Amino acid sequence: MNYRMIAYIVGQIVRVEGVLMLPALICGLMYGENERALQAFVIPILLSILLGTLLAIRKPTNTAIYAKEGFVTVGLSWILLSLLGTLPFVMGGYISSFTDAFFETVSGFTTTGASILTDIESLDKGILFWRSFTHWIGGMGVLVFVMAILPQADTRSVKLMHVMRAEVPGPKVGKLVSKISRSARITYGIYIVMTAIMVIFLLCGGMSLFDSLVSAFSTAGTGGFSVKNTSIAAYDSAYIDWVIGIFMMLFGINFNLYYLIILGHFGQALRSEEMHWYLAIVAGSTALIAFDVRSLFSGAGEAIRYAFFHVSSIITTTGYTTCDYNSWPALSKVIVVLLMFCGGCVGSTAGGIKVGRIILLIKAGLREIKYMLHPRAVVTVKTDGKPAEEEMIRSATSFMIVYIMLFTVSLFFIEILDECDLVTGFTAVSACLNNVGLGLEGVGPSGSFSNFTDASTWILSFNMLAGRLEIFPLLMLFAPSTWRNR
Amino acid sequence: MNYRMIAYIVGQIVRVEGVLMLPALICGLMYGENERALQAFVIPILLSILLGTLLAIRKPTNTAIYAKEGFVTVGLSWILLSLLGTLPFVMGGYISSFTDAFFETVSGFTTTGASILTDIESLDKGILFWRSFTHWIGGMGVLVFVMAILPQADTRSVKLMHVMRAEVPGPKVGKLVSKISRSARITYGIYIVMTAIMVIFLLCGGMSLFDSLVSAFSTAGTGGFSVKNTSIAAYDSAYIDWVIGIFMMLFGINFNLYYLIILGHFGQALRSEEMHWYLAIVAGSTALIAFDVRSLFSGAGEAIRYAFFHVSSIITTTGYTTCDYNSWPALSKVIVVLLMFCGGCVGSTAGGIKVGRIILLIKAGLREIKYMLHPRAVVTVKTDGKPAEEEMIRSATSFMIVYIMLFTVSLFFIEILDECDLVTGFTAVSACLNNVGLGLEGVGPSGSFSNFTDASTWILSFNMLAGRLEIFPLLMLFAPSTWRNR
Repeated sequence: MNYRMIAYIVGQIVRVEGVLMLPALICGLMYGENERALQAFVIPILLSILLGTLLAIRKPTNTAIYAKEGFVTVGLSWILLSLLGTLPFVMGGYISSFTDAFFETVSGFTTTGASILTDIESLDKGILFWRSFTHWIGGMGVLVFVMAILPQADTRSVKLMHVMRAEVPGPKVGKLVSKISRSARITYGIYIVMTAIMVIFLLCGGMSLFDSLVSAFSTAGTGGFSVKNTSIAAYDSAYIDWVIGIFMMLFGINFNLYYLIILGHFGQALRSEEMHWYLAIVAGSTALIAFDVRSLFSGAGEAIRYAFFHVSSIITTTGYTTCDYNSWPALSKVIVVLLMFCGGCVGSTAGGIKVGRIILLIKAGLREIKYMLHPRAVVTVKTDGKPAEEEMIRSATSFMIVYIMLFTVSLFFIEILDECDLVTGFTAVSACLNNVGLGLEGVGPSGSFSNFTDASTWILSFNMLAGRLEIFPLLMLFAPSTWRNR
Repeated sequence: MNYRMIAYIVGQIVRVEGVLMLPALICGLMYGENERALQAFVIPILLSILLGTLLAIRKPTNTAIYAKEGFVTVGLSWILLSLLGTLPFVMGGYISSFTDAFFETVSGFTTTGASILTDIESLDKGILFWRSFTHWIGGMGVLVFVMAILPQADTRSVKLMHVMRAEVPGPKVGKLVSKISRSARITYGIYIVMTAIMVIFLLCGGMSLFDSLVSAFSTAGTGGFSVKNTSIAAYDSAYIDWVIGIFMMLFGINFNLYYLIILGHFGQALRSEEMHWYLAIVAGSTALIAFDVRSLFSGAGEAIRYAFFHVSSIITTTGYTTCDYNSWPALSKVIVVLLMFCGGCVGSTAGGIKVGRIILLIKAGLREIKYMLHPRAVVTVKTDGKPAEEEMIRSATSFMIVYIMLFTVSLFFIEILDECDLVTGFTAVSACLNNVGLGLEGVGPSGSFSNFTDASTWILSFNMLAGRLEIFPLLMLFAPSTWRNR
């Protein structure tokens, strides 16, 4: 294990986090919250930069990074990022319990959006900016960011591929371009431009600049933190609902497709099998829910507006709401729960199992019929017309198994600790592991994650991190074979 | 496709069914229900024997059976068995709706035990005998029975292996002995002896002969149909609770282990990894539930008695009850739901995913960590100390995927059709697909399956058959490639 190299990368990430806290401090100062903002941010910023510099003080002579080091780096840096990101909440006196503050920060970075806060509007602008900004940072990945801004990363590009692989959601990372730092920069470029366009759209709807910025951050990262107690319902505007609804959907699509469109390869982008299914699921779910809740709203237009917003919010695992869907009929609630697990596309900022992985799994499952009919045949699974590697299928099925295991064990312990009703317990774990941030009943739109015991809060925090990093990088930190030298 | 051979085997099975209805008719006559018993059973018996004889009238010259024919035979014969088994309920006027009667019969043969009847005690003894006898027939498999009683099966033993494979629960069929019909006869022998011992135990507890017989049939098949409206609670006896609880647990263990014990290979039998886990889950769940419900009962003994009975009933997917566990605390209910999915051991009469398959899947899932750390390594999964075949792992993961698919699609359509609350919908599908027969809320111990629409009742019937045959044999009937000639 190349500990020095791990420390070097983790150090750079932590240092970048210190710098990324600056906009929140500036925001606080601009809104005249001088004392609280300085109190909340100055020490965390200095600590992050100092710790980062110490860790990365000497560039290692041996820069070799293998898969093992890559996963460990990602796992450790996300834990350290979350711990340091918690400090502003605690030092500013916004959240008294460290456990709760850590949960809120992990919920931010993992783009979950589950909150233990009950009165969000009473908070300062500076800390609200930081809260939503963690979504934006976490959405695309911190490591990807570091690679995008550090030119020297180029020289280690091939080795760092391992590291990036662990951070980008989905079973495969399409290499956009040959050089990884250029690939990271293009991805971040698309991300920034789309966020900026969204801010403009929101400003046009009469939203304030602050609200537009933080809403765009939360949407882009498919996070779901809002600065209003009633989430997006507070704006009470069909225009804003549609803008946010459509942008959530767009941020749930594989960013590679946007890059292909920029390159002019429209045909290739539009042929994506995963995108077809993703859009079909969105359209079908919207239609079914709109029909199911038609009596609750005045007219089909209203029903479609609310149905689409929540379908888009849940499938992209954002978790914004415009009404309490917990009071919808059972069919709509079942669709909501299924969409939580479904998630967005591979290579987007969305969480969940991912549409692409589900398609792959279904095809792999159904081919068993052919194997049973013709035991000696070789049956390949095709995605986008090309045969999928067996290794990819094995990795996707292993993910599913470990996912179910983690889900079951978490639900089991949360019930031991909290004895909450079945639907609350089930959807709380689902909301965290899938990075949705919102469930039904006690953790539904009108509920809160503040009612869990500390121990359950830690389990749910672990689930959010596991969900964001797709379980294995986090699980590996606990596997003895990771730390064994060969 | 060797249609003639399929018809020949299916015919023999159907003819056997006609003969197997005789004891129920005799029982009805013995209890003086002459008119109703004759009306219910005579035509179905004659029809089954006639149809069976017609189908099997000419022994095919080409007796070749491949995997394809094997699965189709099993799928078709279970559907035909269920259709013919439905007739006594309809002709006797016990259940007016054919849909409901079919559900009840499928629930019997698949050893599910879910019932649409609300007043069981008002039924005649003859039909109650038939109802519980379907559990006993379905538990060990009808085809296995045919092979056990037909000596000529010996000559086709190797080919019929394919057929039997589809009917015996679990990812692998241990070949007990070289000749399949001898293997079937030994399995049935153990089954009959264990059932008989159980009858004696129940008689010693003061239960009537009729009740002892039908209770033993239901327990042996891990079915759960009772002749009392309040299930086993009606006997209100700690002795009977313990006898049934322990026998349920015993019928959930792989029958191969009993055969090994008969052969004197105690060591080998006791080393079974699956059995260790199975017993550990039973013990752990009993302890947790007993602790969780301690305040509901008078003393630890009572709590353990009720906890053990239900753990044993649910993990073996029997579905007997002695109290309404729907009013238990959340933790106990979550454990009940998890046990529904868990199921008993491979090669027992229990349903569910099966402990052995779960162990295999967990090991296969966790080895991905090693693959990620050392991408070029070859990592084998070991069960009972021996490396598992990759084909077995692939088949188990495919099963899990198709299982989740079927579960999701079924839940989705039942919610479209019935809009029942989430817990009822979820546990209704789980109760049928896992062959438990009992869920929570609307399908809990005090609920009933009679409240579903006809369409949902058909979906749930399909789920019971799919669960009993482990999905693929039934799914294959709908796959175009099954019917394509090569």
